[in-house]
Amino acid sequence: MYQHKTTIRVRYGETDKMGYLYYGNYAQYFEVGRVEAMRSLGLVYAELEDRYHVMLPVASYETKYVRPARYDELLTVTTHIIEMPNKFMKFYTEIHNEKNELVNVGKVILAFVSTKGKRRGAPGFMKKIMKQHF
Amino acid sequence: MYQHKTTIRVRYGETDKMGYLYYGNYAQYFEVGRVEAMRSLGLVYAELEDRYHVMLPVASYETKYVRPARYDELLTVTTHIIEMPNKFMKFYTEIHNEKNELVNVGKVILAFVSTKGKRRGAPGFMKKIMKQHF
Amino acid sequence: MYQHKTTIRVRYGETDKMGYLYYGNYAQYFEVGRVEAMRSLGLVYAELEDRYHVMLPVASYETKYVRPARYDELLTVTTHIIEMPNKFMKFYTEIHNEKNELVNVGKVILAFVSTKGKRRGAPGFMKKIMKQHF
Amino acid sequence: MYQHKTTIRVRYGETDKMGYLYYGNYAQYFEVGRVEAMRSLGLVYAELEDRYHVMLPVASYETKYVRPARYDELLTVTTHIIEMPNKFMKFYTEIHNEKNELVNVGKVILAFVSTKGKRRGAPGFMKKIMKQHF
Repeated sequence: MYQHKTTIRVRYGETDKMGYLYYGNYAQYFEVGRVEAMRSLGLVYAELEDRYHVMLPVASYETKYVRPARYDELLTVTTHIIEMPNKFMKFYTEIHNEKNELVNVGKVILAFVSTKGKRRGAPGFMKKIMKQHF
Repeated sequence: MYQHKTTIRVRYGETDKMGYLYYGNYAQYFEVGRVEAMRSLGLVYAELEDRYHVMLPVASYETKYVRPARYDELLTVTTHIIEMPNKFMKFYTEIHNEKNELVNVGKVILAFVSTKGKRRGAPGFMKKIMKQHF
Repeated sequence: MYQHKTTIRVRYGETDKMGYLYYGNYAQYFEVGRVEAMRSLGLVYAELEDRYHVMLPVASYETKYVRPARYDELLTVTTHIIEMPNKFMKFYTEIHNEKNELVNVGKVILAFVSTKGKRRGAPGFMKKIMKQHF
Repeated sequence: MYQHKTTIRVRYGETDKMGYLYYGNYAQYFEVGRVEAMRSLGLVYAELEDRYHVMLPVASYETKYVRPARYDELLTVTTHIIEMPNKFMKFYTEIHNEKNELVNVGKVILAFVSTKGKRRGAPGFMKKIMKQHF
Protein backbone atom coordinates (compact mmCIF):
# COMPACT_ATOMS: atom_id res chain seq x y z
CA MET A 1 0.00 0.00 0.00
CA TYR A 2 1.10 3.58 -0.54
CA GLN A 3 -0.02 6.57 1.51
CA HIS A 4 0.52 10.29 1.02
CA LYS A 5 -0.58 13.43 2.88
CA THR A 6 -1.17 16.90 1.46
CA THR A 7 -2.92 19.97 2.88
CA ILE A 8 -5.56 22.21 1.32
CA ARG A 9 -7.03 25.37 2.79
CA VAL A 10 -10.78 25.90 2.17
CA ARG A 11 -11.32 28.89 -0.14
CA TYR A 12 -14.17 31.36 0.31
CA GLY A 13 -15.51 30.54 -3.13
CA GLU A 14 -15.71 26.86 -2.17
CA THR A 15 -18.10 27.44 0.72
CA ASP A 16 -21.87 27.58 0.33
CA LYS A 17 -24.56 29.58 2.13
CA MET A 18 -24.59 27.02 4.98
CA GLY A 19 -21.00 28.18 5.59
CA TYR A 20 -19.72 24.69 4.75
CA LEU A 21 -17.33 23.50 2.08
CA TYR A 22 -19.89 22.66 -0.65
CA TYR A 23 -20.38 18.90 -0.98
CA GLY A 24 -19.43 18.95 -4.67
CA ASN A 25 -16.08 20.61 -4.04
CA TYR A 26 -14.59 17.62 -2.20
CA ALA A 27 -14.05 16.00 -5.60
CA GLN A 28 -11.35 18.60 -6.38
CA TYR A 29 -9.68 17.96 -3.03
CA PHE A 30 -9.61 14.22 -3.79
CA GLU A 31 -8.15 15.05 -7.21
CA VAL A 32 -5.38 17.16 -5.64
CA GLY A 33 -4.69 14.35 -3.15
CA ARG A 34 -4.39 11.77 -5.95
CA VAL A 35 -2.17 13.96 -8.11
CA GLU A 36 0.18 14.81 -5.24
CA ALA A 37 0.33 11.15 -4.12
CA MET A 38 1.33 10.19 -7.66
CA ARG A 39 3.84 13.07 -7.89
CA SER A 40 5.50 11.87 -4.67
CA LEU A 41 6.08 8.54 -6.48
CA GLY A 42 7.61 10.32 -9.48
CA LEU A 43 4.44 9.99 -11.56
CA VAL A 44 3.42 13.39 -12.92
CA TYR A 45 -0.18 13.15 -14.08
CA ALA A 46 0.23 16.01 -16.59
CA GLU A 47 3.01 14.01 -18.29
CA LEU A 48 0.87 10.87 -18.35
CA GLU A 49 -1.52 12.76 -20.61
CA ASP A 50 0.94 14.84 -22.59
CA ARG A 51 3.81 12.41 -23.06
CA TYR A 52 2.26 8.96 -22.66
CA HIS A 53 -1.21 9.76 -24.06
CA VAL A 54 -2.94 8.05 -21.16
CA MET A 55 -5.90 9.64 -19.35
CA LEU A 56 -7.51 8.50 -16.13
CA PRO A 57 -11.19 9.50 -16.15
CA VAL A 58 -13.15 8.69 -13.02
CA ALA A 59 -15.25 5.51 -13.26
CA SER A 60 -16.92 5.71 -9.85
CA TYR A 61 -16.81 7.79 -6.73
CA GLU A 62 -18.36 7.35 -3.31
CA THR A 63 -18.03 9.53 -0.27
CA LYS A 64 -19.35 10.01 3.27
CA TYR A 65 -19.62 13.44 4.86
CA VAL A 66 -18.77 12.93 8.53
CA ARG A 67 -18.65 16.56 9.70
CA PRO A 68 -18.63 19.89 7.86
CA ALA A 69 -15.44 21.64 6.78
CA ARG A 70 -15.53 25.42 7.10
CA TYR A 71 -13.97 28.44 5.44
CA ASP A 72 -10.22 28.89 5.95
CA GLU A 73 -9.72 25.51 7.67
CA LEU A 74 -6.48 23.83 6.71
CA LEU A 75 -7.53 20.30 5.80
CA THR A 76 -5.23 17.29 5.60
CA VAL A 77 -5.98 15.01 2.67
CA THR A 78 -4.59 11.50 3.17
CA THR A 79 -4.59 9.49 -0.04
CA HIS A 80 -4.15 5.72 0.00
CA ILE A 81 -3.38 3.72 -3.11
CA ILE A 82 -4.88 0.46 -1.95
CA GLU A 83 -3.81 -1.98 -4.63
CA MET A 84 -1.58 -2.34 -7.69
CA PRO A 85 -3.13 -0.45 -10.62
CA ASN A 86 -4.16 -2.78 -13.42
CA LYS A 87 -7.28 -2.07 -15.47
CA PHE A 88 -8.31 0.44 -12.83
CA MET A 89 -6.57 2.52 -10.18
CA LYS A 90 -8.25 2.75 -6.80
CA PHE A 91 -7.79 5.54 -4.29
CA TYR A 92 -9.12 5.69 -0.76
CA THR A 93 -9.00 9.17 0.78
CA GLU A 94 -9.57 10.58 4.27
CA ILE A 95 -9.87 14.28 5.04
CA HIS A 96 -9.19 15.59 8.55
CA ASN A 97 -9.53 19.10 9.97
CA GLU A 98 -7.02 21.02 12.12
CA LYS A 99 -8.31 19.31 15.29
CA ASN A 100 -7.55 16.01 13.55
CA GLU A 101 -11.26 15.18 13.40
CA LEU A 102 -12.43 13.11 10.44
CA VAL A 103 -14.34 15.30 7.98
CA ASN A 104 -14.84 13.05 5.00
CA VAL A 105 -13.92 9.69 3.50
CA GLY A 106 -14.01 8.87 -0.18
CA LYS A 107 -13.20 6.10 -2.60
CA VAL A 108 -12.46 6.92 -6.22
CA ILE A 109 -11.86 4.42 -9.02
CA LEU A 110 -10.13 5.67 -12.17
CA ALA A 111 -10.04 3.89 -15.54
CA PHE A 112 -7.06 3.92 -17.92
CA VAL A 113 -8.01 5.32 -21.32
CA SER A 114 -5.88 6.32 -24.31
CA THR A 115 -6.18 9.98 -25.33
CA LYS A 116 -8.16 8.64 -28.32
CA GLY A 117 -10.75 7.35 -25.86
CA LYS A 118 -9.98 3.59 -25.88
CA ARG A 119 -9.87 1.55 -22.66
CA ARG A 120 -6.42 0.18 -21.81
CA GLY A 121 -4.43 -1.01 -18.78
CA ALA A 122 -1.89 0.78 -16.56
CA PRO A 123 1.31 1.65 -18.47
CA GLY A 124 4.34 -0.54 -17.77
CA PHE A 125 6.56 2.15 -16.22
CA MET A 126 3.76 2.98 -13.80
CA LYS A 127 3.41 -0.63 -12.70
CA LYS A 128 7.18 -0.84 -12.19
CA ILE A 129 7.12 2.16 -9.85
CA MET A 130 4.05 0.99 -7.97
CA LYS A 131 5.40 -2.54 -7.51
CA GLN A 132 7.92 -1.32 -4.94
CA HIS A 133 5.05 -0.46 -2.62
CA PHE A 134 2.98 -3.63 -2.91
CA MET B 1 -42.10 6.99 -5.46
CA TYR B 2 -41.76 10.40 -7.07
CA GLN B 3 -39.91 11.18 -10.27
CA HIS B 4 -39.01 14.48 -11.91
CA LYS B 5 -37.06 15.48 -15.02
CA THR B 6 -35.11 18.67 -15.62
CA THR B 7 -32.54 19.64 -18.26
CA ILE B 8 -29.11 21.24 -17.85
CA ARG B 9 -26.76 22.33 -20.62
CA VAL B 10 -23.05 21.71 -19.97
CA ARG B 11 -21.21 25.04 -19.58
CA TYR B 12 -17.73 25.66 -20.95
CA GLY B 13 -16.40 26.39 -17.48
CA GLU B 14 -17.65 22.99 -16.30
CA THR B 15 -15.55 21.02 -18.77
CA ASP B 16 -11.96 19.98 -18.11
CA LYS B 17 -8.94 19.56 -20.39
CA MET B 18 -10.16 16.08 -21.39
CA GLY B 19 -13.11 17.94 -22.91
CA TYR B 20 -15.48 16.17 -20.51
CA LEU B 21 -17.84 17.56 -17.89
CA TYR B 22 -15.47 17.45 -14.87
CA TYR B 23 -16.34 14.59 -12.52
CA GLY B 24 -16.79 16.93 -9.57
CA ASN B 25 -19.37 19.07 -11.35
CA TYR B 26 -22.02 16.34 -11.46
CA ALA B 27 -22.74 17.11 -7.80
CA GLN B 28 -24.21 20.49 -8.83
CA TYR B 29 -26.36 18.81 -11.47
CA PHE B 30 -27.69 16.39 -8.86
CA GLU B 31 -28.37 19.38 -6.58
CA VAL B 32 -30.34 21.15 -9.34
CA GLY B 33 -32.27 17.92 -9.99
CA ARG B 34 -33.18 17.55 -6.30
CA VAL B 35 -34.20 21.18 -5.91
CA GLU B 36 -36.39 21.14 -9.03
CA ALA B 37 -37.97 17.80 -8.03
CA MET B 38 -38.87 19.32 -4.66
CA ARG B 39 -40.13 22.55 -6.29
CA SER B 40 -42.43 20.51 -8.52
CA LEU B 41 -43.98 19.15 -5.29
CA GLY B 42 -44.44 22.65 -3.88
CA LEU B 43 -41.38 22.38 -1.62
CA VAL B 44 -39.07 25.33 -2.18
CA TYR B 45 -35.70 24.46 -0.69
CA ALA B 46 -34.78 28.14 -0.16
CA GLU B 47 -37.88 28.52 2.03
CA LEU B 48 -37.03 25.39 3.99
CA GLU B 49 -33.89 27.16 5.15
CA ASP B 50 -35.20 30.71 5.43
CA ARG B 51 -38.70 30.12 6.80
CA TYR B 52 -38.54 26.72 8.49
CA HIS B 53 -34.87 26.81 9.60
CA VAL B 54 -34.20 23.35 8.27
CA MET B 55 -31.08 22.54 6.23
CA LEU B 56 -30.35 19.36 4.31
CA PRO B 57 -26.58 18.80 4.21
CA VAL B 58 -25.40 15.81 2.21
CA ALA B 59 -24.58 12.74 4.34
CA SER B 60 -23.33 10.49 1.57
CA TYR B 61 -23.02 10.44 -2.18
CA GLU B 62 -22.12 7.72 -4.64
CA THR B 63 -21.96 7.90 -8.39
CA LYS B 64 -20.96 5.88 -11.46
CA TYR B 65 -19.64 7.56 -14.60
CA VAL B 66 -21.02 5.52 -17.49
CA ARG B 67 -19.94 7.72 -20.44
CA PRO B 68 -18.57 11.25 -20.66
CA ALA B 69 -20.78 14.31 -21.05
CA ARG B 70 -19.36 16.99 -23.32
CA TYR B 71 -19.54 20.74 -23.72
CA ASP B 72 -22.90 22.17 -24.79
CA GLU B 73 -24.76 18.85 -24.49
CA LEU B 74 -28.28 19.25 -23.14
CA LEU B 75 -28.48 16.64 -20.38
CA THR B 76 -31.67 15.30 -18.85
CA VAL B 77 -31.47 14.85 -15.10
CA THR B 78 -34.08 12.40 -13.79
CA THR B 79 -34.45 12.59 -10.03
CA HIS B 80 -36.21 9.84 -8.09
CA ILE B 81 -37.31 10.25 -4.49
CA ILE B 82 -37.23 6.59 -3.58
CA GLU B 83 -38.82 6.55 -0.14
CA MET B 84 -40.68 8.70 2.37
CA PRO B 85 -38.24 11.16 4.00
CA ASN B 86 -37.83 10.50 7.69
CA LYS B 87 -34.46 11.02 9.36
CA PHE B 88 -32.88 11.15 5.93
CA MET B 89 -34.04 11.96 2.42
CA LYS B 90 -32.76 9.71 -0.36
CA PHE B 91 -32.45 10.68 -4.00
CA TYR B 92 -31.55 8.43 -6.90
CA THR B 93 -30.58 10.31 -10.07
CA GLU B 94 -29.91 9.33 -13.67
CA ILE B 95 -28.39 11.62 -16.27
CA HIS B 96 -28.93 11.00 -19.99
CA ASN B 97 -27.51 12.80 -23.01
CA GLU B 98 -29.37 14.02 -26.11
CA LYS B 99 -29.15 10.56 -27.72
CA ASN B 100 -30.85 9.22 -24.59
CA GLU B 101 -27.70 7.34 -23.60
CA LEU B 102 -27.03 6.92 -19.90
CA VAL B 103 -24.21 9.22 -18.78
CA ASN B 104 -24.22 8.92 -15.03
CA VAL B 105 -26.13 7.47 -12.08
CA GLY B 106 -25.95 8.78 -8.55
CA LYS B 107 -27.43 8.24 -5.12
CA VAL B 108 -27.42 11.08 -2.62
CA ILE B 109 -28.56 10.87 1.01
CA LEU B 110 -29.37 14.13 2.80
CA ALA B 111 -29.73 14.61 6.55
CA PHE B 112 -32.22 16.97 8.21
CA VAL B 113 -30.47 19.51 10.42
CA SER B 114 -31.75 22.65 12.16
CA THR B 115 -30.05 25.88 11.08
CA LYS B 116 -28.37 25.75 14.52
CA GLY B 117 -26.71 22.51 13.44
CA LYS B 118 -28.79 19.92 15.39
CA ARG B 119 -29.97 16.69 13.74
CA ARG B 120 -33.74 16.43 13.39
CA GLY B 121 -36.34 14.62 11.26
CA ALA B 122 -38.30 15.71 8.19
CA PRO B 123 -40.73 18.57 8.98
CA GLY B 124 -44.41 17.60 9.23
CA PHE B 125 -45.65 19.65 6.25
CA MET B 126 -43.03 17.97 4.08
CA LYS B 127 -44.13 14.50 5.13
CA LYS B 128 -47.74 15.43 4.39
CA ILE B 129 -46.88 16.46 0.84
CA MET B 130 -44.67 13.43 0.21
CA LYS B 131 -47.24 10.98 1.57
CA GLN B 132 -49.39 11.46 -1.51
CA HIS B 133 -46.68 9.85 -3.60
CA PHE B 134 -45.87 6.81 -1.46
CA MET C 1 -26.27 46.06 -32.18
CA TYR C 2 -27.61 42.68 -31.15
CA GLN C 3 -29.24 41.88 -27.83
CA HIS C 4 -30.33 38.59 -26.29
CA LYS C 5 -31.87 37.57 -22.96
CA THR C 6 -31.50 34.27 -21.13
CA THR C 7 -32.31 33.23 -17.56
CA ILE C 8 -30.16 31.39 -15.02
CA ARG C 9 -31.21 30.24 -11.56
CA VAL C 10 -28.56 30.57 -8.82
CA ARG C 11 -27.42 27.12 -7.66
CA TYR C 12 -26.67 26.32 -4.03
CA GLY C 13 -23.12 25.37 -4.89
CA GLU C 14 -22.61 28.78 -6.49
CA THR C 15 -23.33 30.70 -3.28
CA ASP C 16 -20.71 31.46 -0.66
CA LYS C 17 -20.86 31.75 3.13
CA MET C 18 -22.14 35.34 2.83
CA GLY C 19 -25.19 33.76 1.17
CA TYR C 20 -24.39 35.59 -2.07
CA LEU C 21 -23.63 34.29 -5.54
CA TYR C 22 -19.81 34.12 -5.29
CA TYR C 23 -18.16 36.96 -7.22
CA GLY C 24 -16.14 34.53 -9.33
CA ASN C 25 -19.21 32.64 -10.53
CA TYR C 26 -20.59 35.54 -12.56
CA ALA C 27 -18.01 34.70 -15.24
CA GLN C 28 -19.92 31.46 -16.00
CA TYR C 29 -23.20 33.39 -16.22
CA PHE C 30 -21.61 35.80 -18.71
CA GLU C 31 -20.33 32.79 -20.66
CA VAL C 32 -23.82 31.27 -20.81
CA GLY C 33 -25.22 34.63 -21.91
CA ARG C 34 -22.65 34.92 -24.71
CA VAL C 35 -23.16 31.37 -25.92
CA GLU C 36 -26.95 31.67 -25.98
CA ALA C 37 -26.77 35.06 -27.72
CA MET C 38 -24.59 33.48 -30.41
CA ARG C 39 -26.87 30.42 -30.67
CA SER C 40 -29.86 32.70 -31.23
CA LEU C 41 -27.96 34.04 -34.27
CA GLY C 42 -27.29 30.52 -35.57
CA LEU C 43 -23.71 30.51 -34.31
CA VAL C 44 -23.08 27.41 -32.19
CA TYR C 45 -19.89 27.99 -30.22
CA ALA C 46 -19.20 24.25 -29.88
CA GLU C 47 -19.15 24.00 -33.70
CA LEU C 48 -16.85 26.99 -33.99
CA GLU C 49 -14.25 24.96 -32.11
CA ASP C 50 -15.00 21.50 -33.47
CA ARG C 51 -15.78 22.29 -37.11
CA TYR C 52 -14.09 25.62 -37.80
CA HIS C 53 -11.11 25.22 -35.42
CA VAL C 54 -11.60 28.68 -33.99
CA MET C 55 -11.47 29.34 -30.23
CA LEU C 56 -12.44 32.52 -28.42
CA PRO C 57 -10.37 32.82 -25.24
CA VAL C 58 -11.14 35.81 -23.03
CA ALA C 59 -8.72 38.72 -23.44
CA SER C 60 -10.15 40.99 -20.77
CA TYR C 61 -13.07 41.16 -18.41
CA GLU C 62 -14.40 43.89 -16.18
CA THR C 63 -17.43 43.85 -13.95
CA LYS C 64 -19.25 45.90 -11.31
CA TYR C 65 -21.25 44.26 -8.53
CA VAL C 66 -24.26 46.48 -7.95
CA ARG C 67 -26.24 44.35 -5.51
CA PRO C 68 -25.90 40.72 -4.35
CA ALA C 69 -27.66 37.84 -6.08
CA ARG C 70 -28.94 35.17 -3.74
CA TYR C 71 -29.63 31.43 -3.78
CA ASP C 72 -32.50 30.28 -6.01
CA GLU C 73 -33.04 33.70 -7.60
CA LEU C 74 -33.92 33.50 -11.28
CA LEU C 75 -31.58 36.00 -12.91
CA THR C 76 -32.02 37.51 -16.35
CA VAL C 77 -28.78 37.81 -18.28
CA THR C 78 -28.98 40.38 -21.08
CA THR C 79 -26.10 40.10 -23.51
CA HIS C 80 -25.30 42.88 -25.96
CA ILE C 81 -22.98 42.42 -28.91
CA ILE C 82 -21.91 46.02 -29.23
CA GLU C 83 -19.95 46.05 -32.45
CA MET C 84 -19.07 43.94 -35.50
CA PRO C 85 -16.55 41.26 -34.48
CA ASN C 86 -13.21 41.75 -36.18
CA LYS C 87 -9.98 40.95 -34.36
CA PHE C 88 -11.94 40.84 -31.13
CA MET C 89 -15.54 40.22 -30.14
CA LYS C 90 -16.97 42.48 -27.44
CA PHE C 91 -19.87 41.64 -25.17
CA TYR C 92 -21.60 43.91 -22.71
CA THR C 93 -23.81 42.11 -20.19
CA GLU C 94 -26.35 43.17 -17.58
CA ILE C 95 -27.80 40.87 -14.95
CA HIS C 96 -31.13 41.67 -13.29
CA ASN C 97 -32.95 39.87 -10.48
CA GLU C 98 -36.64 38.90 -10.32
CA LYS C 99 -37.60 42.38 -9.11
CA ASN C 100 -35.88 43.72 -12.23
CA GLU C 101 -33.17 45.36 -10.10
CA LEU C 102 -29.71 45.60 -11.62
CA VAL C 103 -27.36 43.07 -10.01
CA ASN C 104 -24.25 43.25 -12.12
CA VAL C 105 -22.79 44.68 -15.30
CA GLY C 106 -19.85 43.24 -17.18
CA LYS C 107 -17.82 43.74 -20.31
CA VAL C 108 -15.94 40.83 -21.82
CA ILE C 109 -13.59 40.98 -24.80
CA LEU C 110 -12.78 37.72 -26.58
CA ALA C 111 -9.91 37.14 -29.01
CA PHE C 112 -10.11 34.90 -32.08
CA VAL C 113 -7.47 32.16 -31.97
CA SER C 114 -6.97 29.07 -34.13
CA THR C 115 -7.11 25.77 -32.23
CA LYS C 116 -3.34 25.65 -32.78
CA GLY C 117 -3.07 28.81 -30.69
CA LYS C 118 -2.46 31.47 -33.40
CA ARG C 119 -4.25 34.83 -33.34
CA ARG C 120 -6.64 35.38 -36.23
CA GLY C 121 -9.73 37.42 -37.10
CA ALA C 122 -13.43 36.57 -37.03
CA PRO C 123 -14.34 33.88 -39.59
CA GLY C 124 -16.13 35.09 -42.73
CA PHE C 125 -19.43 33.24 -42.18
CA MET C 126 -19.63 34.82 -38.73
CA LYS C 127 -19.14 38.30 -40.10
CA LYS C 128 -21.82 37.65 -42.71
CA ILE C 129 -24.35 36.69 -40.02
CA MET C 130 -23.41 39.58 -37.74
CA LYS C 131 -23.56 42.16 -40.55
CA GLN C 132 -27.34 41.92 -40.60
CA HIS C 133 -27.44 43.44 -37.12
CA PHE C 134 -25.01 46.31 -37.57
CA MET D 1 2.33 49.85 -0.23
CA TYR D 2 2.24 46.24 0.84
CA GLN D 3 3.11 43.28 -1.35
CA HIS D 4 2.77 39.54 -0.75
CA LYS D 5 3.45 36.42 -2.83
CA THR D 6 1.72 33.06 -2.65
CA THR D 7 1.70 30.06 -5.00
CA ILE D 8 -1.23 28.07 -6.37
CA ARG D 9 -1.06 24.98 -8.54
CA VAL D 10 -3.70 24.73 -11.30
CA ARG D 11 -6.11 21.87 -10.55
CA TYR D 12 -7.50 19.60 -13.25
CA GLY D 13 -11.04 20.62 -12.40
CA GLU D 14 -10.11 24.26 -12.95
CA THR D 15 -9.09 23.75 -16.58
CA ASP D 16 -11.54 23.89 -19.47
CA LYS D 17 -11.70 22.04 -22.79
CA MET D 18 -9.19 24.47 -24.32
CA GLY D 19 -6.77 23.05 -21.74
CA TYR D 20 -6.48 26.48 -20.09
CA LEU D 21 -7.27 27.59 -16.57
CA TYR D 22 -10.90 28.71 -17.11
CA TYR D 23 -11.19 32.50 -17.18
CA GLY D 24 -13.70 32.50 -14.34
CA ASN D 25 -11.41 30.60 -11.99
CA TYR D 26 -8.86 33.41 -11.69
CA ALA D 27 -11.26 35.11 -9.28
CA GLN D 28 -10.57 32.37 -6.70
CA TYR D 29 -6.83 32.78 -7.18
CA PHE D 30 -7.15 36.51 -6.56
CA GLU D 31 -9.22 35.70 -3.46
CA VAL D 32 -6.52 33.36 -2.13
CA GLY D 33 -3.89 36.02 -2.87
CA ARG D 34 -5.86 38.68 -0.95
CA VAL D 35 -6.54 36.41 2.02
CA GLU D 36 -2.90 35.30 2.32
CA ALA D 37 -1.66 38.89 1.94
CA MET D 38 -3.95 39.91 4.81
CA ARG D 39 -2.93 36.88 6.90
CA SER D 40 0.74 37.84 6.49
CA LEU D 41 -0.20 41.17 8.13
CA GLY D 42 -1.95 39.42 11.02
CA LEU D 43 -5.41 40.03 9.58
CA VAL D 44 -7.35 36.76 9.38
CA TYR D 45 -10.31 37.31 7.06
CA ALA D 46 -12.35 34.52 8.71
CA GLU D 47 -12.05 36.38 12.04
CA LEU D 48 -13.08 39.66 10.43
CA GLU D 49 -16.41 38.05 9.64
CA ASP D 50 -16.82 35.86 12.71
CA ARG D 51 -15.42 38.12 15.44
CA TYR D 52 -15.72 41.63 14.06
CA HIS D 53 -18.88 41.14 11.95
CA VAL D 54 -17.34 42.84 8.95
CA MET D 55 -17.62 41.40 5.44
CA LEU D 56 -15.78 42.53 2.32
CA PRO D 57 -17.93 41.80 -0.74
CA VAL D 58 -16.38 42.61 -4.10
CA ALA D 59 -17.53 45.94 -5.57
CA SER D 60 -15.68 45.73 -8.86
CA TYR D 61 -13.17 43.54 -10.62
CA GLU D 62 -11.19 43.95 -13.81
CA THR D 63 -8.65 41.62 -15.32
CA LYS D 64 -6.52 41.12 -18.41
CA TYR D 65 -5.56 37.67 -19.66
CA VAL D 66 -2.03 37.97 -21.01
CA ARG D 67 -1.25 34.32 -21.70
CA PRO D 68 -2.99 31.07 -20.76
CA ALA D 69 -2.20 29.14 -17.59
CA ARG D 70 -2.24 25.39 -17.99
CA TYR D 71 -2.94 22.31 -15.87
CA ASP D 72 -0.46 21.58 -13.08
CA GLU D 73 1.45 24.85 -13.51
CA LEU D 74 2.60 26.34 -10.22
CA LEU D 75 1.52 29.96 -10.46
CA THR D 76 2.84 32.80 -8.33
CA VAL D 77 0.15 35.23 -7.22
CA THR D 78 1.59 38.61 -6.23
CA THR D 79 -0.92 40.73 -4.35
CA HIS D 80 -0.38 44.46 -3.87
CA ILE D 81 -2.38 46.53 -1.41
CA ILE D 82 -2.04 49.83 -3.19
CA GLU D 83 -3.47 52.30 -0.69
CA MET D 84 -4.74 52.63 2.88
CA PRO D 85 -8.16 50.93 3.18
CA ASN D 86 -10.87 53.41 4.00
CA LYS D 87 -14.37 53.00 2.54
CA PHE D 88 -12.94 50.49 0.09
CA MET D 89 -9.94 48.20 -0.01
CA LYS D 90 -8.09 47.95 -3.33
CA PHE D 91 -5.96 45.06 -4.46
CA TYR D 92 -3.79 44.85 -7.54
CA THR D 93 -2.69 41.33 -8.45
CA GLU D 94 -0.23 39.82 -10.92
CA ILE D 95 -0.01 36.14 -11.75
CA HIS D 96 3.18 34.67 -13.21
CA ASN D 97 3.92 31.14 -14.41
CA GLU D 98 6.98 28.98 -13.62
CA LYS D 99 8.98 30.65 -16.40
CA ASN D 100 8.20 33.95 -14.68
CA GLU D 101 6.05 35.04 -17.63
CA LEU D 102 3.10 37.29 -16.86
CA VAL D 103 -0.16 35.33 -17.12
CA ASN D 104 -2.75 37.72 -15.78
CA VAL D 105 -3.25 41.04 -14.05
CA GLY D 106 -6.27 42.01 -12.03
CA LYS D 107 -7.62 44.81 -9.89
CA VAL D 108 -10.26 44.07 -7.27
CA ILE D 109 -12.06 46.63 -5.11
CA LEU D 110 -13.78 45.38 -1.96
CA ALA D 111 -16.39 47.26 0.07
CA PHE D 112 -16.69 47.12 3.86
CA VAL D 113 -20.13 45.92 4.95
CA SER D 114 -21.47 44.90 8.36
CA THR D 115 -22.72 41.31 8.54
CA LYS D 116 -26.22 42.89 8.65
CA GLY D 117 -25.54 44.27 5.18
CA LYS D 118 -24.86 47.96 5.96
CA ARG D 119 -22.00 49.86 4.31
CA ARG D 120 -19.26 50.95 6.72
CA GLY D 121 -15.57 51.87 6.70
CA ALA D 122 -12.47 49.84 7.49
CA PRO D 123 -12.31 48.81 11.18
CA GLY D 124 -9.87 50.77 13.35
CA PHE D 125 -7.55 47.87 14.24
CA MET D 126 -7.17 47.16 10.53
CA LYS D 127 -6.21 50.74 9.75
CA LYS D 128 -3.66 50.65 12.58
CA ILE D 129 -1.97 47.58 11.12
CA MET D 130 -2.04 48.90 7.57
CA LYS D 131 -0.67 52.31 8.57
CA GLN D 132 2.76 50.81 9.13
CA HIS D 133 3.01 50.07 5.44
CA PHE D 134 1.85 53.38 4.01
